[in-house]
Amino acid sequence: MTDARQQHPVIAAGVAGLAGLYRRGDSDPLAVTRFYLDRIAALDGTVGAYNQVLAEQAMVDASASAARRRAGKPLSEIDGAPIAVKANIAVAGAFWHAGIGAYRTRIAQQDADCVARLRAAGAVILGVANMHEGALGATTDNVWFGRTQNPLRDGYTAGGSSGGSAAAVAAGLAAAALGSDTMGSVRIPSAYCGLAGYKPARHVISLDGVIPLSTSLDHVGVHGWTVIDCALIAAHAGAGAATSPSLQGLRLAVPNWRARVEAPDFIWKARDEAATLLLLAGMQRVSADLDAYQSGQARRLGLLVSEVEGLNAHEAQLARSEDGFSPEFLGLLRWGGRQPATRIAAAYQGLDAIRCAGMAWLEQVDAVLLPTAPQTAFPFGQPVPANQADFTALADFIGCPAVAVPFGRSPDGLPLSVQVIGKDPSIVLGVAASLG
Amino acid sequence: MTDARQQHPVIAAGVAGLAGLYRRGDSDPLAVTRFYLDRIAALDGTVGAYNQVLAEQAMVDASASAARRRAGKPLSEIDGAPIAVKANIAVAGAFWHAGIGAYRTRIAQQDADCVARLRAAGAVILGVANMHEGALGATTDNVWFGRTQNPLRDGYTAGGSSGGSAAAVAAGLAAAALGSDTMGSVRIPSAYCGLAGYKPARHVISLDGVIPLSTSLDHVGVHGWTVIDCALIAAHAGAGAATSPSLQGLRLAVPNWRARVEAPDFIWKARDEAATLLLLAGMQRVSADLDAYQSGQARRLGLLVSEVEGLNAHEAQLARSEDGFSPEFLGLLRWGGRQPATRIAAAYQGLDAIRCAGMAWLEQVDAVLLPTAPQTAFPFGQPVPANQADFTALADFIGCPAVAVPFGRSPDGLPLSVQVIGKDPSIVLGVAASLG
Repeated sequence: MTDARQQHPVIAAGVAGLAGLYRRGDSDPLAVTRFYLDRIAALDGTVGAYNQVLAEQAMVDASASAARRRAGKPLSEIDGAPIAVKANIAVAGAFWHAGIGAYRTRIAQQDADCVARLRAAGAVILGVANMHEGALGATTDNVWFGRTQNPLRDGYTAGGSSGGSAAAVAAGLAAAALGSDTMGSVRIPSAYCGLAGYKPARHVISLDGVIPLSTSLDHVGVHGWTVIDCALIAAHAGAGAATSPSLQGLRLAVPNWRARVEAPDFIWKARDEAATLLLLAGMQRVSADLDAYQSGQARRLGLLVSEVEGLNAHEAQLARSEDGFSPEFLGLLRWGGRQPATRIAAAYQGLDAIRCAGMAWLEQVDAVLLPTAPQTAFPFGQPVPANQADFTALADFIGCPAVAVPFGRSPDGLPLSVQVIGKDPSIVLGVAASLG
Repeated sequence: MTDARQQHPVIAAGVAGLAGLYRRGDSDPLAVTRFYLDRIAALDGTVGAYNQVLAEQAMVDASASAARRRAGKPLSEIDGAPIAVKANIAVAGAFWHAGIGAYRTRIAQQDADCVARLRAAGAVILGVANMHEGALGATTDNVWFGRTQNPLRDGYTAGGSSGGSAAAVAAGLAAAALGSDTMGSVRIPSAYCGLAGYKPARHVISLDGVIPLSTSLDHVGVHGWTVIDCALIAAHAGAGAATSPSLQGLRLAVPNWRARVEAPDFIWKARDEAATLLLLAGMQRVSADLDAYQSGQARRLGLLVSEVEGLNAHEAQLARSEDGFSPEFLGLLRWGGRQPATRIAAAYQGLDAIRCAGMAWLEQVDAVLLPTAPQTAFPFGQPVPANQADFTALADFIGCPAVAVPFGRSPDGLPLSVQVIGKDPSIVLGVAASLG
């Protein structure tokens, strides 16, 4: 499948573009929502991005949005933007199961805080997006709800855990999507699908109404075609507006992690080319690195914390029955639960040390440029690379803003992505946007 | 014993006063250090504040300090201030055992970061102060190194775990002292001994060279006669200078926790009288409270994390031998180590939720006024009150600055203390100083 943006101007518009179309009266939220719903009906059987399509409510909301647009009184610049919402984020009246079979009949009684905010800004919720079971994994090959295909290459994973959210946008089945990111679950599928992905700092978008994997590491994030689209949705989901900074003189770290994270040379080359562009744009290279950071070891700490916190999250259900938890997912949770107290404490102590060192690091730089994932999307059936989250997890550990932005293609024609992290959300978004 | 400040003008001077005496040539660091060493020799057999007196090195350092003072070139305003250092904080060449028998022969190879900074500012280290074993407990009734008496009432505890540090100051055996505070270990003994106690925000004073109890909760702090003395020492130990704010219009929360923490009415009355003074001084009362905070439950989370992190801290030694760990201390560590993974994770998750809610709370107020301890000093042999740290632990969980300041006496004649916590160290110190 080619880039969906080439298939229709509505898709190419994205969130920011739709606002322009609406403002100029070149289109309206009702027509755009109908377009997306028709396209979902036609294509999602193949893509598998959605668990549930909320066609009726979406049309009602789109109709109200269209009336506001006609009256010249939109609720915000995203009024009438049709979006998808990951299945662990509550949408009132819709399934809310986090990709776990045990919860497949659970209906959310009210919107998650971020969904309520987006609705109050006029966003139209198209449906519930598929995800990796329990948000613990990055292939979105879900035994209960099916497999989400990578819209750019059939038979390839869209990544995860927010794979349905990313695929919905990349297939042209939503203008943007909400996801969640515990060690990279927004940014990795965005990278695999050729999208931008933005995870604001911790708790900037509320986790109220989000089924937790790890309360210590979970973040809500956004998938969109562009950094601007992600920033617009995030702003109205609770993150607030970002300003547009000048890049002139900002300090850029381009850490040499070749010995830390194994990745093909084209991954590093893309990152280095992106760095060159940023330096040409006036940023200043600084050598500060997070020397003590061992990404593989840190990943194991983050996984252990996610597993045992995941076990706590699903404790009540598991006490009733283990039905509806796959052996793989349950095995990870139970493995965490079997570890000795000292090992669990050491994991928290290790992550705390990373957070403290990371925050000190981010005081010395304005932005850090890293690859987003050590590999491109890969075929289902291929072993899942252990190091998938080795570039992304750090920003979850630190709790700082991070943006993935598409940057070129692999020799094989799959999307590449670079990642900007830092302390200041406006700077992180601004640096990433300048690469988009 | 009466207030030691009435016994000699050098004691009454405290850190700030000594700077004045030195500046005016009314005394010099050599004479003052000799005074303190003589007094330690005469009285510490009774008090039990010190594990080790570093008389020789102190005289060498005092001599150098005196020369600088004579030359009118002091290293800082604390040049020549004689201080005590808690036994878990490294002083090069001195015993460094954290009150644990297993380490009784261990000599620190180099100064802790905070000690090195104080030395570089001219402070004179008088000796190593006694502490509760492993910093896990608040009576400083140490089976290996003896009992520290409360200088204000014989047979009463000085509190802990920094009981030796507080007793050294309160008995007039040091001008100030370094302690450490994991759930209240600086502020509780300061309260019991009629002193000020200051715990800056987390990691503001480095923990490098401090034997950990809990890397997640440990803070270095200062005991002194006044808030100003504490602030002066803290500034040179790594916290940097605080400015003196106007109280006018600052928002003061005076939470009604009578139903949360059991304390005699005179404890609450002292706090309420202190609040009245602050409001008369121009602060504005705000009603914001940390509604979700259950101090008893939170204390248990903090204790569990301290116990299992304490087990990790002493793991290497325990693998060799359990000799030199008291059954009480070892029992607490081992109890933590026996808990299931999910319970440990839940403790970290609970403390994280408290930290996040607490930080949001401190955005809505400038200062919070609470009692420091729910009781005054009590006799050895009396059961240790379980709720000792129920007012102090919160600031360790949040990681924010907190100051204990003496405020009146109990009907029984023992010191009372109120505690100021908040986000901004200058405000917290300024509010507390206005009560001192």
